[in-house]
Amino acid sequence: MNYPFSPPPRLLMGPGPSNVSPEVLAAQARPTIGHLDPGFVRLMDLIKGQLRAAFRTNNRVTFPLSAPASLAMEMALVTLLEPGDTAIIAQNGVFGGRMAEIARRAGATVQLVCAEWGKPVDPEAVRASMLEAPQAKLLAFVHAETSTGVRSDAAALCALAREAGMLSVVDTVTGLGGIPVLVDDWHADAVYAATQKCLSAPPGLAPITFSDRAVAAVMARTSPIQSWFLDLGLMLGYWEGEGARSYHHTAPVNALYGLHESLSRLLEEGLETSWARHRAAHEQLADRLQGLGVAFVVDKAHRLPQLNTVWVPEGVEDAPARRRLLDEFGIEIGGGLGPLAGRIWRIGLMGETCRMENVERLADAIAAILP
Amino acid sequence: MNYPFSPPPRLLMGPGPSNVSPEVLAAQARPTIGHLDPGFVRLMDLIKGQLRAAFRTNNRVTFPLSAPASLAMEMALVTLLEPGDTAIIAQNGVFGGRMAEIARRAGATVQLVCAEWGKPVDPEAVRASMLEAPQAKLLAFVHAETSTGVRSDAAALCALAREAGMLSVVDTVTGLGGIPVLVDDWHADAVYAATQKCLSAPPGLAPITFSDRAVAAVMARTSPIQSWFLDLGLMLGYWEGEGARSYHHTAPVNALYGLHESLSRLLEEGLETSWARHRAAHEQLADRLQGLGVAFVVDKAHRLPQLNTVWVPEGVEDAPARRRLLDEFGIEIGGGLGPLAGRIWRIGLMGETCRMENVERLADAIAAILP
Repeated sequence: MNYPFSPPPRLLMGPGPSNVSPEVLAAQARPTIGHLDPGFVRLMDLIKGQLRAAFRTNNRVTFPLSAPASLAMEMALVTLLEPGDTAIIAQNGVFGGRMAEIARRAGATVQLVCAEWGKPVDPEAVRASMLEAPQAKLLAFVHAETSTGVRSDAAALCALAREAGMLSVVDTVTGLGGIPVLVDDWHADAVYAATQKCLSAPPGLAPITFSDRAVAAVMARTSPIQSWFLDLGLMLGYWEGEGARSYHHTAPVNALYGLHESLSRLLEEGLETSWARHRAAHEQLADRLQGLGVAFVVDKAHRLPQLNTVWVPEGVEDAPARRRLLDEFGIEIGGGLGPLAGRIWRIGLMGETCRMENVERLADAIAAILP
Repeated sequence: MNYPFSPPPRLLMGPGPSNVSPEVLAAQARPTIGHLDPGFVRLMDLIKGQLRAAFRTNNRVTFPLSAPASLAMEMALVTLLEPGDTAIIAQNGVFGGRMAEIARRAGATVQLVCAEWGKPVDPEAVRASMLEAPQAKLLAFVHAETSTGVRSDAAALCALAREAGMLSVVDTVTGLGGIPVLVDDWHADAVYAATQKCLSAPPGLAPITFSDRAVAAVMARTSPIQSWFLDLGLMLGYWEGEGARSYHHTAPVNALYGLHESLSRLLEEGLETSWARHRAAHEQLADRLQGLGVAFVVDKAHRLPQLNTVWVPEGVEDAPARRRLLDEFGIEIGGGLGPLAGRIWRIGLMGETCRMENVERLADAIAAILP
């Protein structure tokens, strides 16, 4: 049971985690200090500032949730929804479906706006849904669908919510750092991401930000938030307190060292430069795959550069082929989920992974296993 | 905003986190791999086996929750309680109160069994409460109260629950690794701990185990679990699936490397040896503090060796004195919570911190700051 464990060498080109830089790994290995230590409180303030820059927001309430992004999704929804509320939820992949499930468990009535998997959310369909349910409290959608590789038009969707007097909840787990995420320009109300995608920190934390309008809606609730852990008011006593922070939970100190380092690297590179790097690597990958006759699932206009979905090439068996890439080439790519399981591959070019030499290495490996 | 961060050197003698060994820090810094990688699936199996050994249980459902222990508390309660259920909750410190708050938010009726802070849970009071509320579904209590340094009699309390046909929920966040935690001997039903106390891994994960009886109660629920993230059935598809694991959330890969290493160290030392080490260090600390005229809060019979609570010495101001220990001696100890704030100190001797030289270093430092 005490067998030692050494992770095998891998190039992480799946839907996440992405490769983590040696600098971030080293930061995580610095000595643990107390979560109420004045030094750690300073680090918390640094990270909040970095996250505001990464999200392009001035939102006061911006912090890393001490849990995976699935729980950030749950936090955004159970914090804003009360039993009896209506939520309009756009579903064009796995994660919209998960949002609906969470909202229902919070006692909300869900009105789904479905789009085919592989297509973006249709703003016209959302507008029609809003006319049907003008009492809805919020619109929730996935900006960057990790299950399909589709980017939806967050600016347009948030604008619709605002016009209708609804709050907007934006899942950009795979978006942040790889494509523009402009929280303030969009007037988005609750936006969350993850560390293990384009930020290239290890998985386990979820950056989240709430607009003042969202915070006001939380404060105006008439029923308590169903989750103690996700209670925004309680959590802010810890993340926002001046001077003495009130104890809420013990923050994951070392993981936050890593996040700080990864955000430092991203902001030093510059968001625009990072976005351009993701675009360029994606174009190179698209060129190489086209040369191999491998076809993209998503129309060019709606592709996420950092998460490329392609049809499993003809004559290739999905799982054995991915296993060969892993075992013979040390490259992880992802399979499909739900109705796309066995039919597509998901190729991540996120954060540290997003380098031209990795594009070439993967394309060469795929070329080698094609029949 | 990109100011570099270096944690100050600290000896962590507060209520957690405890010192983390260089080996565990180094394990955390190994390259990240995918959370569905066959190598990672093997690691998950190793960790589940190690946790069964640490908890002294054969429970199939034993795994590290990807979040702080506060969420493990919430998982145990919202998984087992349905709206309308009654829960008997013993409160003798901060964490029993948190349990009650969580249970109420889950729609349960809470019957509190209160004890003075600094005293253990009284089995006779619990028995009386059970007679008053024989319909209660569960008894929840804190085995090792981190806010007061008190150990309650988990064996006796779990036996009462079993006799009454109720489930038992045991918080042993500060217990695991430092004092006997005997899940199967106790016939306990849901038991959870944390990584940053006597396991001496960085904070962020929460080992949890459910008895078959608890799992059966979950499967017999008539309403869905209010939290998607904490839905035991969904989570088990990920942690328990044979062969292909179903995707639930992205596990905190590097944090789990660290937990594996910390459990390896604990099990190599042996649980009994670790328990004895904690006892011995505690006795040494008690001797030294007695010599300095510093008095314990808790009666000898109910003290946690790993979490020592003492009255702030006369003529000493709480916060400035702790700040001196931190700034001049590099030692963190904890202050009191709730009604004990400003009145007590909490001195941790947990895991890696629990060494005779640390006891001496702290006692010398306290001696130096006494008036």
